[in-house]
Amino acid sequence: MASESGKLWGGRFVGSVDPIMEKFNSSIAYDQNLWEVDVRGSKAYSRGLQKAGLLTMAEMDQILHGLDKVAEEWAQGTFKVHPNDEDIHTANERRLKELIGETAGKLHTGRSRNDQVVTDLRLWMRQTCSSLSVLLRELIRSMVDRAEAERDVLFPGYTHLQRAQPIRWSHWILSHAVALTRDSERLLEVQKRINVLPLGSGAIAGNPLGVDRELLRAELNFAAITLNSMDATSERDFVAEFLFWASLCMTHLSRMAEDLILYGTKEFSFVQLSDAYSTGSSLMPQKKNPDSLELIRSKAGRVFGRCAGLLMTLKGLPSTYNKDLQEDKEAVFEVADTMSAVLQVTTGVISTLQIHRENMARALSPDMLATDLAYYLVRKGMPFRQAHEASGKAVFAAETKGIALNQLSLQELQTISPLFSGDVSRVWDYGHSVEQYGALGGTARCSIDWQIAQVRALLHAQQA
Amino acid sequence: MASESGKLWGGRFVGSVDPIMEKFNSSIAYDQNLWEVDVRGSKAYSRGLQKAGLLTMAEMDQILHGLDKVAEEWAQGTFKVHPNDEDIHTANERRLKELIGETAGKLHTGRSRNDQVVTDLRLWMRQTCSSLSVLLRELIRSMVDRAEAERDVLFPGYTHLQRAQPIRWSHWILSHAVALTRDSERLLEVQKRINVLPLGSGAIAGNPLGVDRELLRAELNFAAITLNSMDATSERDFVAEFLFWASLCMTHLSRMAEDLILYGTKEFSFVQLSDAYSTGSSLMPQKKNPDSLELIRSKAGRVFGRCAGLLMTLKGLPSTYNKDLQEDKEAVFEVADTMSAVLQVTTGVISTLQIHRENMARALSPDMLATDLAYYLVRKGMPFRQAHEASGKAVFAAETKGIALNQLSLQELQTISPLFSGDVSRVWDYGHSVEQYGALGGTARCSIDWQIAQVRALLHAQQA
Amino acid sequence: MASESGKLWGGRFVGSVDPIMEKFNSSIAYDQNLWEVDVRGSKAYSRGLQKAGLLTMAEMDQILHGLDKVAEEWAQGTFKVHPNDEDIHTANERRLKELIGETAGKLHTGRSRNDQVVTDLRLWMRQTCSSLSVLLRELIRSMVDRAEAERDVLFPGYTHLQRAQPIRWSHWILSHAVALTRDSERLLEVQKRINVLPLGSGAIAGNPLGVDRELLRAELNFAAITLNSMDATSERDFVAEFLFWASLCMTHLSRMAEDLILYGTKEFSFVQLSDAYSTGSSLMPQKKNPDSLELIRSKAGRVFGRCAGLLMTLKGLPSTYNKDLQEDKEAVFEVADTMSAVLQVTTGVISTLQIHRENMARALSPDMLATDLAYYLVRKGMPFRQAHEASGKAVFAAETKGIALNQLSLQELQTISPLFSGDVSRVWDYGHSVEQYGALGGTARCSIDWQIAQVRALLHAQQA
Amino acid sequence: MASESGKLWGGRFVGSVDPIMEKFNSSIAYDQNLWEVDVRGSKAYSRGLQKAGLLTMAEMDQILHGLDKVAEEWAQGTFKVHPNDEDIHTANERRLKELIGETAGKLHTGRSRNDQVVTDLRLWMRQTCSSLSVLLRELIRSMVDRAEAERDVLFPGYTHLQRAQPIRWSHWILSHAVALTRDSERLLEVQKRINVLPLGSGAIAGNPLGVDRELLRAELNFAAITLNSMDATSERDFVAEFLFWASLCMTHLSRMAEDLILYGTKEFSFVQLSDAYSTGSSLMPQKKNPDSLELIRSKAGRVFGRCAGLLMTLKGLPSTYNKDLQEDKEAVFEVADTMSAVLQVTTGVISTLQIHRENMARALSPDMLATDLAYYLVRKGMPFRQAHEASGKAVFAAETKGIALNQLSLQELQTISPLFSGDVSRVWDYGHSVEQYGALGGTARCSIDWQIAQVRALLHAQQA
Repeated sequence: MASESGKLWGGRFVGSVDPIMEKFNSSIAYDQNLWEVDVRGSKAYSRGLQKAGLLTMAEMDQILHGLDKVAEEWAQGTFKVHPNDEDIHTANERRLKELIGETAGKLHTGRSRNDQVVTDLRLWMRQTCSSLSVLLRELIRSMVDRAEAERDVLFPGYTHLQRAQPIRWSHWILSHAVALTRDSERLLEVQKRINVLPLGSGAIAGNPLGVDRELLRAELNFAAITLNSMDATSERDFVAEFLFWASLCMTHLSRMAEDLILYGTKEFSFVQLSDAYSTGSSLMPQKKNPDSLELIRSKAGRVFGRCAGLLMTLKGLPSTYNKDLQEDKEAVFEVADTMSAVLQVTTGVISTLQIHRENMARALSPDMLATDLAYYLVRKGMPFRQAHEASGKAVFAAETKGIALNQLSLQELQTISPLFSGDVSRVWDYGHSVEQYGALGGTARCSIDWQIAQVRALLHAQQA
Repeated sequence: MASESGKLWGGRFVGSVDPIMEKFNSSIAYDQNLWEVDVRGSKAYSRGLQKAGLLTMAEMDQILHGLDKVAEEWAQGTFKVHPNDEDIHTANERRLKELIGETAGKLHTGRSRNDQVVTDLRLWMRQTCSSLSVLLRELIRSMVDRAEAERDVLFPGYTHLQRAQPIRWSHWILSHAVALTRDSERLLEVQKRINVLPLGSGAIAGNPLGVDRELLRAELNFAAITLNSMDATSERDFVAEFLFWASLCMTHLSRMAEDLILYGTKEFSFVQLSDAYSTGSSLMPQKKNPDSLELIRSKAGRVFGRCAGLLMTLKGLPSTYNKDLQEDKEAVFEVADTMSAVLQVTTGVISTLQIHRENMARALSPDMLATDLAYYLVRKGMPFRQAHEASGKAVFAAETKGIALNQLSLQELQTISPLFSGDVSRVWDYGHSVEQYGALGGTARCSIDWQIAQVRALLHAQQA
Repeated sequence: MASESGKLWGGRFVGSVDPIMEKFNSSIAYDQNLWEVDVRGSKAYSRGLQKAGLLTMAEMDQILHGLDKVAEEWAQGTFKVHPNDEDIHTANERRLKELIGETAGKLHTGRSRNDQVVTDLRLWMRQTCSSLSVLLRELIRSMVDRAEAERDVLFPGYTHLQRAQPIRWSHWILSHAVALTRDSERLLEVQKRINVLPLGSGAIAGNPLGVDRELLRAELNFAAITLNSMDATSERDFVAEFLFWASLCMTHLSRMAEDLILYGTKEFSFVQLSDAYSTGSSLMPQKKNPDSLELIRSKAGRVFGRCAGLLMTLKGLPSTYNKDLQEDKEAVFEVADTMSAVLQVTTGVISTLQIHRENMARALSPDMLATDLAYYLVRKGMPFRQAHEASGKAVFAAETKGIALNQLSLQELQTISPLFSGDVSRVWDYGHSVEQYGALGGTARCSIDWQIAQVRALLHAQQA
Repeated sequence: MASESGKLWGGRFVGSVDPIMEKFNSSIAYDQNLWEVDVRGSKAYSRGLQKAGLLTMAEMDQILHGLDKVAEEWAQGTFKVHPNDEDIHTANERRLKELIGETAGKLHTGRSRNDQVVTDLRLWMRQTCSSLSVLLRELIRSMVDRAEAERDVLFPGYTHLQRAQPIRWSHWILSHAVALTRDSERLLEVQKRINVLPLGSGAIAGNPLGVDRELLRAELNFAAITLNSMDATSERDFVAEFLFWASLCMTHLSRMAEDLILYGTKEFSFVQLSDAYSTGSSLMPQKKNPDSLELIRSKAGRVFGRCAGLLMTLKGLPSTYNKDLQEDKEAVFEVADTMSAVLQVTTGVISTLQIHRENMARALSPDMLATDLAYYLVRKGMPFRQAHEASGKAVFAAETKGIALNQLSLQELQTISPLFSGDVSRVWDYGHSVEQYGALGGTARCSIDWQIAQVRALLHAQQA
């Protein structure tokens, strides 16, 4: 038989142990990230065992002290991972046994790695999401502060990357800040679903030894407990949700980065990145490249890739725990690191960006007021569709003559529509233009102020 | 120049119009789905225009009646789409003009297709998500009802697809039902973010004509208004969220389908699909295939593909409206249809599935009680790690002898540990086994009842 | 029992037939696309049956004529799909039986829908890929023709979207054309793997009736036959490959579209789309938007989404045919349609695009020659790293003085390096600059000519 | 201005350097993987510079020796990465300068990191793909050897996971082996496109110093040179193709793993994993879990995620080099490592798997011969559709009586069709059944032998 000779079918040699399989199976290389939460979870669980009469008070104390010692070794970098420690749970329990002896063998009573690992991961993610929440709100706050300070700068608003209408620069900043407030809101919802305790679910059937899950919940400060032990040990919704949260947030940041890269080209020349966020070229001496923004844009792919990968792994997986789920952790760790860096770098970029007001002003042109010209006629009673057409004719007339739209004489305008009169000159004032857009959400100053107040109120509420 | 001759570079002929481009650009083939909400949005907007003094009461009435007529034509299937109707908005306004004349030209005052289309889509999705919510809760309810009725059926719980521990069949049903309650909760959150009005944002800069967005909000029954006109017209978070919601929900259903496909094999023989959800083979007369479950499983891919596609489209897109966003609608329509069918078919499958209790019972074997055997020793004071090892020795002894674990004599057990005594016989009772798992979330009957009550309470709360 | 009452568990009513399930299961709505290849496959198969002695010559003729009649009905739009025709195979065979009677029942001998559908799909895709190949090469040819005609136009080459070095406009065109030649090469490889016959594989075990698969291959003009019947009926590599081919090709086109959108902004003003590929704004009279290019860019997401969806569907699927595979066809049809439109529209865009040579020339600036300035020093013997630094100092000196790099006096340059002499003036000639880049693949005219010849040779070879 | 105070907008402090940005930007942590190929590329390039007259022979020798010393330090683990070494190219050149002085500054003449990094990556991937090719063919060879040795084992073939027809176990093995031969073929195509030299493309415009790219090609043993310098430095098709190759290969392995996980359940009991590829449970003493197979299945998600991530990063990216492309390397390294481990572990699993022939035999049942029963009637002249129906009636009759299909008496069969006679008894022989499937690709022994020969011929051809 194959397994006896180990080499019947021409394959590579395989004895009772395959070192490549060992490494393939092992997770200690990355799940040692969880050392602290693993210790925390075990401490809570030993309290649960004591309350359930499965540990004496003395045994519990022994375990608690042992676990503190384990944590201390990790914190001081003196913990030695052994070749047989396939994961952080095994490593910590092995070390505990070395430190306190056989009593360590009681810690895993009624617990399985299935409920242990998912408890650890939830603890870790709860903490990480809190940090990311803070970083995200810090970024939004920087943007809002900047929007407030630069409220009076006008520049072209684009649709389809074509100049569309004059807007406030703050309106642009706020458009991205507002998008990020939704990410901030969504992250709180993800955190809510992370904050549910699975411990006490065992491997599949639950806990048979009277461990009080409410006590465990309180010890570990979770908001609720999971409802079903089979689901609790094998669902990774909170991971998928986190990865998707990050993907959507990165999509927003990729769009803002794209804008800023464009605005920073020679051709637009609206903004200039601070040196701290640019790099030079190994070949071209004159170049200064927006590497920070390009990296932000690119990370949207990486982060989404992790989300896609996890969902594919989950697709069609049979119920309850399967080793496939081990894929969750590297995805979470990588994405959490990426988000932390991206949010901080973006805050740095936004905080230190220079704007070129004169270039922004220079980029405004009378044809961007064609819509306002149509509204002028609307205000005089012309149906919008006709006004749109009339304004289009004016644009065409100006183009044909090779002059700017505002250089058409009143007479010329009147051949297009008799409704034009001397007051049309007010249309050509960009400052006047933006002030018309006073409906909530528009680019008028009052609306910008309203937006700033709204976002600040949201941030305040989310912080609580 | 190229555009004059139209054929300088050896390409296909292109005059002033390229019919392939026309079709490529047009969305009427699918966005006519939005006819009803487009009319609804236009009616509300005309009320806003009237309040803002841009329409007289008479003009508004004319428009309202005209729009009702347009809707009637759609409802009765008599609306004729013209070749120039590139989208539903153009089609409806064109028809309105035919019906009521020039006044129709006032309807679009201050409005852009950018805010119009996203308002339409939100209205459509709000309604669709409500329906999907109902269908999803109906599915969960069927599952909970079934779990309650079949509480006393035991069968093997699997991890890694290996027989693990005896559990209640209801515990399995509830594990999937509980997963779906999270989908139900998430859908409500998506709905909350859908339910925000963008109308009054214009193309980019906002609305300059004093239209009261609060009035529009109230007319269309939205919960809030968007904060920033640039963001409002170009963010598709609510679409991405919806597609991800569906993807994660489908992942759950794919896992349940996988379980049921396995349980329905000859080898497992735990369940049998009703004929309504099976099909035969064109070649093999004896076959009855679980096509319904396979299709459910497969749709996880399709739905996720739409989510992936949209996120890729959004990645790195410059600010504000770009035509790229036109990709949103087909994704939403297809996924909404798929989810509606999947949820209903799954409910049908679950409602009509037969279970084979005897096969389920027969599949329980004493080795699945090895964990309980270890707990027996734990209860007698042995540390779990030693008890796990002792139970492992018993398993090995039975295997070696070629007998079942429960056929080891007391004497044999006592050579493994002196803690074994006569009461070990109770371990071999499956009914007794499951009743031990009384911690919340476990497989004991009391915990099943608690789970049922919890899920029902959730459903009740979500319905409100 | 559930299936008896049909409504034990509170679900929606389900009798022996669930209309939603019927629709969910049915594929006729889209697989009727395959009518022609299905008839073709059946005709070949009936010839195989005749050779194997399973049909008489007369029966074969009867079937062949019947199938021709079926095809005629489809071609003339008179074929009537019945409610029970769940797929195109059933529909065609049902109709054949109506036309020729019981003999029709012999056609499916030894055949299964499993081998039939995958044969149909391969036939359809073979034909479609041929058409796409032609369209793709037509696009490349247009680009190469244009590159040849506009060889003498210079404009800025960008890296990181920052102006880098002067290049020929043709160099830019060719950079995209060359990328597309790889797509063209890959498509031929996909076609090679499509062009393999699965017919004669039955449902799983093969064909037991002596049908000669070589004869079938020759009849249907396939290059080879599949090796294993289980694999043949359930592998969809050729579908996945096609979808990935399209995804990568779309990535290329999305990058070219992005460039052209940028080059068409007011700020760059290098190119102008012909009217046939632009559209106006419903709100802003002056706007002309590059909708064609935006749609091309966006379709990269949609196409990739289908690829992602199929791979997820395939992941972890048990061996051989499962209904999950039904997802393949809609993906293929949608992607094929999209690619056909995209390739033609892109050809139209490229063929009719206007370029603004003066703006291109104006955008060249002396700082883009900083690299050449460094090379000047290199040619005089300075190590490149020092020359790079020296050139950087010159850039800085010019910036500090607020003058262009070429306005630094020789004296000023000599304070940076004594190697500068009067001949430095040649550096400032853009035409001279590009001509230096004569290594194969560079932007010198000779290299452009070489590139054009190379691409043409490739196209010629691929056509054969 | 923002960049002066560095902290105008409430953001985190940012001076001229942001350490988080430095780390975000740096790639040395992972691209040091490229040390060897970077040295190799630089050595070839210095030869090119010498031939072009940009280095003297002595300078070239100095550089070559210096580079050998750099390589030696890496090989011996004594190379010290400095904090300022942002990537491997910078690190190696910095060290070279320390070792040989200013001459080192000549090495980068006419070269850019843009062409350097992509040359390095191609060299690295060429070598890695060769190794993966070997591992993949080794796996296929193991499978074919096993298929040959176990040709006479029969077991149930499944479609839709329902028992379909008796097949040879070797037929199943070969179905997966044949799928892998396509991966092997595709990998060769990817290698072909990797094996093209970009060096000499500079940053964008090409090389202006007369470096002979043909010489570089020959030095580095590439099959061809890239055609266009802009494309060469920024296309990552070969990366995307490699990632997709891996994704599709993993999809195949995930399907095989799924089969084996099922076949290894208690319920199927066809195969047993060797201990080297199984692991136990921390809770349940009796468990032996197929972790190796589950990990193989799960990696399909991870690998595909990297492919999806890269494509998203590429989507819509402007022409030529952007820092976004830095995302390519981690994806390639991770996927290459994963594939290497997966292929070796799979070979180990297949080589050591035990099969349970008796269980396989026992799982065959007469109803799986219903198709053959229909063919029996076909051979007697009945049209297949009627025969299929007749056989279906027999199945139903047997089910109704609660007996096996082969236990129906001849008389009973004859009430279904008078064509049944005594020779029907041969139908019930499984060995006879499989031998009927003699068409190429079927499950008859001769066809299995043909398949084995075909796959071996393919492997032989691919090796060359």
